[in-house]
Amino acid sequence: MQDTSADRRRGRGGGGAARRAARSATAVETAAVITRNIPDFEVLTEEALEIIEWNAETVLEEVGVNFVNNPAALQRWRDAGADVSGERVRLPRGLARKLIQTAPGSFVQHARNPEKSVTIGGRNLVLAPVYGPPFVRDLTGGRRYATIDDFRNFVKLGHMSKWLHHSGGTVCEPTDVPVNKRHLDMIEAHVTLTDKPFMGAVTEPSRARDSVEMCEIVFGKDFVADNCVLTSLININSPLTFDDTMMGALEVYAAAGQACIISPFIVGGAMAPVSVAGTLTQVLAETMAGVAYSQLIRPGAPVIMGAFVTSIDMNSGAPTFGTPEASQVTYGAGQLARRLGLPFRSAGSFCGSKLPDAQAAYETANTLNMGLLSGVNFMLHACGWLEGGLVASYEKFVMDADQLGALHRMAAGVDSGEAAQAMDAIREVGPGGHYLGCAHTQEHFKTAFWRSEVFDYKPYETWSEEGARDTATLAQIRARRLLDTYVPPAIDPAISEALGAYIAGKRASEPDAFS
Amino acid sequence: MQDTSADRRRGRGGGGAARRAARSATAVETAAVITRNIPDFEVLTEEALEIIEWNAETVLEEVGVNFVNNPAALQRWRDAGADVSGERVRLPRGLARKLIQTAPGSFVQHARNPEKSVTIGGRNLVLAPVYGPPFVRDLTGGRRYATIDDFRNFVKLGHMSKWLHHSGGTVCEPTDVPVNKRHLDMIEAHVTLTDKPFMGAVTEPSRARDSVEMCEIVFGKDFVADNCVLTSLININSPLTFDDTMMGALEVYAAAGQACIISPFIVGGAMAPVSVAGTLTQVLAETMAGVAYSQLIRPGAPVIMGAFVTSIDMNSGAPTFGTPEASQVTYGAGQLARRLGLPFRSAGSFCGSKLPDAQAAYETANTLNMGLLSGVNFMLHACGWLEGGLVASYEKFVMDADQLGALHRMAAGVDSGEAAQAMDAIREVGPGGHYLGCAHTQEHFKTAFWRSEVFDYKPYETWSEEGARDTATLAQIRARRLLDTYVPPAIDPAISEALGAYIAGKRASEPDAFS
Repeated sequence: MQDTSADRRRGRGGGGAARRAARSATAVETAAVITRNIPDFEVLTEEALEIIEWNAETVLEEVGVNFVNNPAALQRWRDAGADVSGERVRLPRGLARKLIQTAPGSFVQHARNPEKSVTIGGRNLVLAPVYGPPFVRDLTGGRRYATIDDFRNFVKLGHMSKWLHHSGGTVCEPTDVPVNKRHLDMIEAHVTLTDKPFMGAVTEPSRARDSVEMCEIVFGKDFVADNCVLTSLININSPLTFDDTMMGALEVYAAAGQACIISPFIVGGAMAPVSVAGTLTQVLAETMAGVAYSQLIRPGAPVIMGAFVTSIDMNSGAPTFGTPEASQVTYGAGQLARRLGLPFRSAGSFCGSKLPDAQAAYETANTLNMGLLSGVNFMLHACGWLEGGLVASYEKFVMDADQLGALHRMAAGVDSGEAAQAMDAIREVGPGGHYLGCAHTQEHFKTAFWRSEVFDYKPYETWSEEGARDTATLAQIRARRLLDTYVPPAIDPAISEALGAYIAGKRASEPDAFS
Repeated sequence: MQDTSADRRRGRGGGGAARRAARSATAVETAAVITRNIPDFEVLTEEALEIIEWNAETVLEEVGVNFVNNPAALQRWRDAGADVSGERVRLPRGLARKLIQTAPGSFVQHARNPEKSVTIGGRNLVLAPVYGPPFVRDLTGGRRYATIDDFRNFVKLGHMSKWLHHSGGTVCEPTDVPVNKRHLDMIEAHVTLTDKPFMGAVTEPSRARDSVEMCEIVFGKDFVADNCVLTSLININSPLTFDDTMMGALEVYAAAGQACIISPFIVGGAMAPVSVAGTLTQVLAETMAGVAYSQLIRPGAPVIMGAFVTSIDMNSGAPTFGTPEASQVTYGAGQLARRLGLPFRSAGSFCGSKLPDAQAAYETANTLNMGLLSGVNFMLHACGWLEGGLVASYEKFVMDADQLGALHRMAAGVDSGEAAQAMDAIREVGPGGHYLGCAHTQEHFKTAFWRSEVFDYKPYETWSEEGARDTATLAQIRARRLLDTYVPPAIDPAISEALGAYIAGKRASEPDAFS
């Protein structure tokens, strides 16, 4: 499934693309961002919320957080009124909460195609694909290191998924590209192979700067100065530690008015206490400190409060996914984010399974449902995650992306208008009758129910004759078909040329580094 | 995996059982019924609820329901003030709601082992296995007609599942036993192979009577007269039709003070309108009429308001499961049941897949989560369902039963007590530390997180060396091991002898019938 650069060039506009578009059976359509018309599910009582909020302030005041190798950050904190000792920053009760007030409750991230710009926050849910796996499970069923061709394939699959609103960031690690130049190839792919919004590099402050500069080429310098065109993932080193690489990237993005997800990455019992309430306390303390810091860089910089938290298997020490405790943390974190008035990032297609099998699907479905009901505003990893995030799977990508359609339907809530009440239909059909032929059914049938484009709904006999295929097999067929019919979105040739020139210059400016 | 009757006899007490118990590695323990310490998720607004309730009364008043081949029922309705014309019964607005008031909001169903008796209603959730499949997918991976040996195996698996509170009813159809005698074998299995509560026969009023008589042998005649020892499934023939077989069984059970689930079985768009609000209107009208009728038979008879509702694939006409519309109906039906003050039955391990694969797991997880959050009090089909309910699967039985453990944890809610707040742990570990070794973690680690007993949590390399097994394979191993280590619960020999004599008498009293 690796495409060649010749394929890629052919794909960009021109006769080949037109011919492929003409024979394509796959419509490329992107759904509007989910706007929830259903309530949030809340597991914490008012009393529990107040305890956790009080305790988080106590943690910030008594224990504090470390800003590592970052004298400028320590000075900013001193100037803001924090108690700084060595690298430890202790925040007087109420300081973080006060600083957070300048962060917007929602913001627009612009896409190259204005129709695909997304509003993050409020009742909205924006879906983005898997982020970070060094491995892929490819369409031959093999597990191997990910390459830039895999990266491009996942961007293409994301582009073609109706239910993904966002192209994400490091959809897999392109391990065949030098570490110090990967971000150039990745952003180029997000710019040229899709027109959905995307994320910037965070592995070095200089790469964050490159990301912003590439966006200036694509969107125009003035536009980027005034608008958010990147949302990037800043991880906190739990417990309570902010390293200079991640903070350096945050500083670049916040200063440029670009959005960051500020998010602990926690395996409960290892990086946080082995209890839901204790973990939530630490998550709240960490994200409050991180978000407050973003506002010290630039008041009003758009930020998302993140919570990547999962449980641990007490037998093996392995992280576990789709568990009830992970759900409880996420539901609770959603409540805390809403009380802070911040957009909330959590959940995704999490699973620990090595295969796109039943374990993967139970764990993922548990997490996707929880993500919808917990009020998540930005769901990274919404499709394609396998093996605890070590692997991006082509099959799982399309399986999960299909389920995201169901989330859209669920979020729309229940219509109780006159047509939906269907009283005429009930009167028409009466006791013992059949609804399939009635006028109301005929009128609404086509749009009444969500249906999977991956699952098999055929009778046993037909399914059996067709080879008794399981979901992974059907997903493989779908992924191949999507990639085979992929057509890139239009792009101004002047922009892609300028971007190419920028990348060539950057590539030539320093030697390749592989670690 | 078919056990022989010699095996079974050997299994019942005696030296063989003792030896097997001694070498058994599988503890047989049953969890307490779930008591929800979390809120219900509600999709219908107050306005939508009032519209649906008003419309349901309009349906009962204007359209009415049919009671087929049942002159006594028609007379009861006439006496209660309904407008009866032919087999059509029209209920004046408010009549059904008034009659329903005598139905208890919750009730105890007694088990042979008093520790396993269950309270159905209120904040409780009772879990029971799959009901009704004519086929099994067995432990060789084959799909074939179910037999009485399969039936007994599923009762054994249910007995050994910690998370199942109830042994269910027709866990599969024992198609090798004459139709008119199956109920005898099925109840015998539920009485002798487990000590959990179970369900009675509904396929003929006489078989319902036999079910009650067998319980009188097990529990004592006086006890059965005063207590509920059977909960049985009475389906409504949607739309709006109550047939004489099902109503005959309901009449037997209600008169005997035994519980019934009164439940439409609806594929939306076929047996109900192709909209959530319309379907809920019909479900409410049907269950109100059915529950009201149970109270005409015996005021105070325990009943459960049921809703088995799913969606349809508009391409093939096949029922589809785990869909957002099915969830919305269930959430809404839960709200309606709570407003009527009735225990609520819905959800289960629903899926359309032919295999215990990812499709099966996504659909099932969607449904189990929705079942928990919708406030279901009695969940039939909670494990083992495959292929739209045509197939009971050994593998899926143990996969789903494992997930039911997660529901228990989720329902327990979040502890915000001092130990759970873990402030000492956060102070002890501090920024950059590790929680695995701290005192709080050591103290709470073993019970902190739910873990699967089916899924693979091992590293990729170990998993690969062990044969790269998928979930279905691991579940097959678990099912075999459970059956291999099964030990029947103790039973008073006088009871099993009396029950055997009753069954022998019944078997001899009429010729076998196979349809």
